Amino acid sequence: MKFSEIIQKLDAASHNLTSNPDCNPEITGVAPIDTASSGTLSYIEGGKFAAQVGKTSASALILSQDETLKAQATERGIAWLAAVEPRLVFAQAIALFYQPFRPSPEIHPTAVIHPTAEIGKDVYIGAHVVIQPGVKIGNEVCIHPNVVIYPEVQIGDRTVLHANCTIHERTQIGANCVIHSGAAIGSEGFGFVPTPQGWFKMEQSGYTVLEDGVEIGCNSTVDRPAVGETRIRRNTKLDNLVHIGHGCEIGQNTALAAQVGLAGGVKVGNQVLLAGQVGIANQAHIGDGAIATAKAGIHSDVAPGAIVTGVPAIPHKVFVKAAAIYHRLPEMYQTLKQIQRRIQ
Amino acid sequence: MKFSEIIQKLDAASHNLTSNPDCNPEITGVAPIDTASSGTLSYIEGGKFAAQVGKTSASALILSQDETLKAQATERGIAWLAAVEPRLVFAQAIALFYQPFRPSPEIHPTAVIHPTAEIGKDVYIGAHVVIQPGVKIGNEVCIHPNVVIYPEVQIGDRTVLHANCTIHERTQIGANCVIHSGAAIGSEGFGFVPTPQGWFKMEQSGYTVLEDGVEIGCNSTVDRPAVGETRIRRNTKLDNLVHIGHGCEIGQNTALAAQVGLAGGVKVGNQVLLAGQVGIANQAHIGDGAIATAKAGIHSDVAPGAIVTGVPAIPHKVFVKAAAIYHRLPEMYQTLKQIQRRIQ
Amino acid sequence: MKFSEIIQKLDAASHNLTSNPDCNPEITGVAPIDTASSGTLSYIEGGKFAAQVGKTSASALILSQDETLKAQATERGIAWLAAVEPRLVFAQAIALFYQPFRPSPEIHPTAVIHPTAEIGKDVYIGAHVVIQPGVKIGNEVCIHPNVVIYPEVQIGDRTVLHANCTIHERTQIGANCVIHSGAAIGSEGFGFVPTPQGWFKMEQSGYTVLEDGVEIGCNSTVDRPAVGETRIRRNTKLDNLVHIGHGCEIGQNTALAAQVGLAGGVKVGNQVLLAGQVGIANQAHIGDGAIATAKAGIHSDVAPGAIVTGVPAIPHKVFVKAAAIYHRLPEMYQTLKQIQRRIQ
Repeated sequence: MKFSEIIQKLDAASHNLTSNPDCNPEITGVAPIDTASSGTLSYIEGGKFAAQVGKTSASALILSQDETLKAQATERGIAWLAAVEPRLVFAQAIALFYQPFRPSPEIHPTAVIHPTAEIGKDVYIGAHVVIQPGVKIGNEVCIHPNVVIYPEVQIGDRTVLHANCTIHERTQIGANCVIHSGAAIGSEGFGFVPTPQGWFKMEQSGYTVLEDGVEIGCNSTVDRPAVGETRIRRNTKLDNLVHIGHGCEIGQNTALAAQVGLAGGVKVGNQVLLAGQVGIANQAHIGDGAIATAKAGIHSDVAPGAIVTGVPAIPHKVFVKAAAIYHRLPEMYQTLKQIQRRIQ
Repeated sequence: MKFSEIIQKLDAASHNLTSNPDCNPEITGVAPIDTASSGTLSYIEGGKFAAQVGKTSASALILSQDETLKAQATERGIAWLAAVEPRLVFAQAIALFYQPFRPSPEIHPTAVIHPTAEIGKDVYIGAHVVIQPGVKIGNEVCIHPNVVIYPEVQIGDRTVLHANCTIHERTQIGANCVIHSGAAIGSEGFGFVPTPQGWFKMEQSGYTVLEDGVEIGCNSTVDRPAVGETRIRRNTKLDNLVHIGHGCEIGQNTALAAQVGLAGGVKVGNQVLLAGQVGIANQAHIGDGAIATAKAGIHSDVAPGAIVTGVPAIPHKVFVKAAAIYHRLPEMYQTLKQIQRRIQ
Repeated sequence: MKFSEIIQKLDAASHNLTSNPDCNPEITGVAPIDTASSGTLSYIEGGKFAAQVGKTSASALILSQDETLKAQATERGIAWLAAVEPRLVFAQAIALFYQPFRPSPEIHPTAVIHPTAEIGKDVYIGAHVVIQPGVKIGNEVCIHPNVVIYPEVQIGDRTVLHANCTIHERTQIGANCVIHSGAAIGSEGFGFVPTPQGWFKMEQSGYTVLEDGVEIGCNSTVDRPAVGETRIRRNTKLDNLVHIGHGCEIGQNTALAAQVGLAGGVKVGNQVLLAGQVGIANQAHIGDGAIATAKAGIHSDVAPGAIVTGVPAIPHKVFVKAAAIYHRLPEMYQTLKQIQRRIQ
């Protein structure tokens, strides 16, 4: 595809792109900046990678609106387009060259589908999939091999279930969701009541709801509660190995990075970012737009828009200043002792 | 079911329940307090939810022995029963209305079962289950679809294995256990010895034992050791995404919350509570009744009954006081410098 | 097997073993020191276990070069051999008595293999395995039941894939690798670009490479990137529940303990050790031979050979000293206030 054609297709998404019109190479693929070869399109993610403009073998680049980088690319004969959000434009460019593996509609003869299940149109159901009674599958759904779906699950149109994942009873999954390999959705919440005779199991009679556009990473787990529901709202994305406890409610357009863990009854707002390995204790509420940095341990409510860090989590700016002093603790302790002695 | 009938059934479990006898609605299900509708039974978990008594649409409530709440419920025409342990009573009430999905005994024709395997009575073996040589399965065991059982595994009566989990060679699982979806039990411990030529693999010739009543959460992993055994004692419960290293020994009636990780050779006592994302280093011993709060990092032995927090873990009360000062570190550092200057 | 024969076989691996030649029991197996019975060979891992020499029922022991232990064993009539690296010798001894379960070559009739897949010689493909188009499998590969392999994957000779794991499109796995149960390799990286309309999905057109001798633990996940590759180099070992983000590059002979998480684009050197639950932020570089202790949170580059601890990670020795003072913070704060008052 000619670079000019790529620009045209991307421009249709109206990003106010600028480019160097003299340069119009044939582009055959997309590549990372440090290993890009001739004929590929790459992009400069940020300042750290700016030096790559002088070295890359890429034939075309997506740049931020940076005049120095533009000039440098032009000088090296590299075609470029510049955008306010180069990462978004690069994401759109990738989609011009790449489509993920998507099997054609088919119900594999080895799939075991209960006669009471309702299956939509143009569905792919891979080998060895098991669908239990009362399940409803929408149109154009793609269920990869070895998935197991427990009774009375509902799955919306165009949702993709990757291999070896398990969807438990009564789970409701919306349209355009992606459940990655090995994830377990709607599994029993961890509900045990202590008694003198040991743990008494609280049956988990509730269910889990994933609204439209939700994505759940590989081997993540989203439990259902004893009563009521666990809910993840529209367009929220979970990375791999995330745990969502029973009865949690997560807002829209929120993102949870890998290995985040939410205890029971946690409420997370819209457009929240929880970085890797964050943990949130029972019943805590996280306000809209809040950010928890990696490994934060949150025990109480977080205000909308707040950025928190540490265990227990405190405002990020406060944490950074305290953490910068932490290594001086032994020195401070000695100084304090000396002063005390001198004063006495 | 009439509320009086529910009370009768719960009272048989002798909880010294009290109730308002005038009020006897028909109850059709259980529900969480904030979304309960007419005809449902709910409960008030604690002080935080007390205000809900004035708002809920539930027709009946399980309360703690709190006279104000009782009076308030009576005034609003809500049937109630009060108990010393309302959560336990609610757990029993749920079981009156809900039974988890339990397929009827059947060996699905697509299951691949080695002829040397011994299968008990009234067993369910779902589609695409694979059972390797020498496996022994007790009575009334329920093995959901796509489970794989390696050779010489033993599984006790009434144990449930959820979909897509894997039980490795020589594992012994007791009676009344539940292994949730995607869990891997008895897998190879992480045993590698450094040599100048790289890692030398230590074969893991041991095995894993789960005693009666053990529950293992979704996608959790319990490794077997190089020699000897990894053992989890009776009635201990593990949440999702927990890792148990090779050669660990975990006591009875203990609970490990989600994403807890135990390195090799860790010993955990009876009735211990490890909160979410706790980590315990090689060979550490945790005494009976100890509690580790969320995200604690334990490097050495913990005394029976101790409550520990932090990385490295220290007594909880000490940690809380220190953590409350942590944000003052920069201020303390400045003050100290000023005093030093003044004194000199 | 006579103990002398064991010594001969181990000596062939030239470890400069010494032993007490008078004692030559028949050895039927290997066992841990605290539960070893007569007829078994065990070993003393370190000082903590030295007292066991006086108590064990083992008939033979592998010891470090410690004259006291040797004399004590001789006195008790226990055969022994002593080595500079007793753990390595014990690992070799285990392999004399134990071979892991390894099914004979066979392609199970229930496996679903696309006609375009190329399968090597002497391969085991278990029941219900699914192999999609364009996959290439080497010789003597062992694929346990219920594994799913997406299109265009390559798997090298003698590699073992345990049950229920999933290998995603275009993944390249070398020779002599082991992928444990439930692992997901080459799955989509977590790539979403924020827009006013919500998250825009960045397609993950790259692929994942595991070089020869790599081992991936149960339920671990290794994502592929948007462009380019995620690579784990020769002989590196990952424990269970580890997450490797898109575009990471991990060196040779490195080891990652359970529940470690690497964000996107992290570079880890050769012979690095990352202990349990370590987290590394986007784009950080970890130098050769570095060590991160358990639960470290790494936000910036770590120098070769450095040992780091804490969140954010700092040099281990510095952390240990500061952590030893941490619990004195309230006392320090009070002292400081008193001094301030006295001075004013």
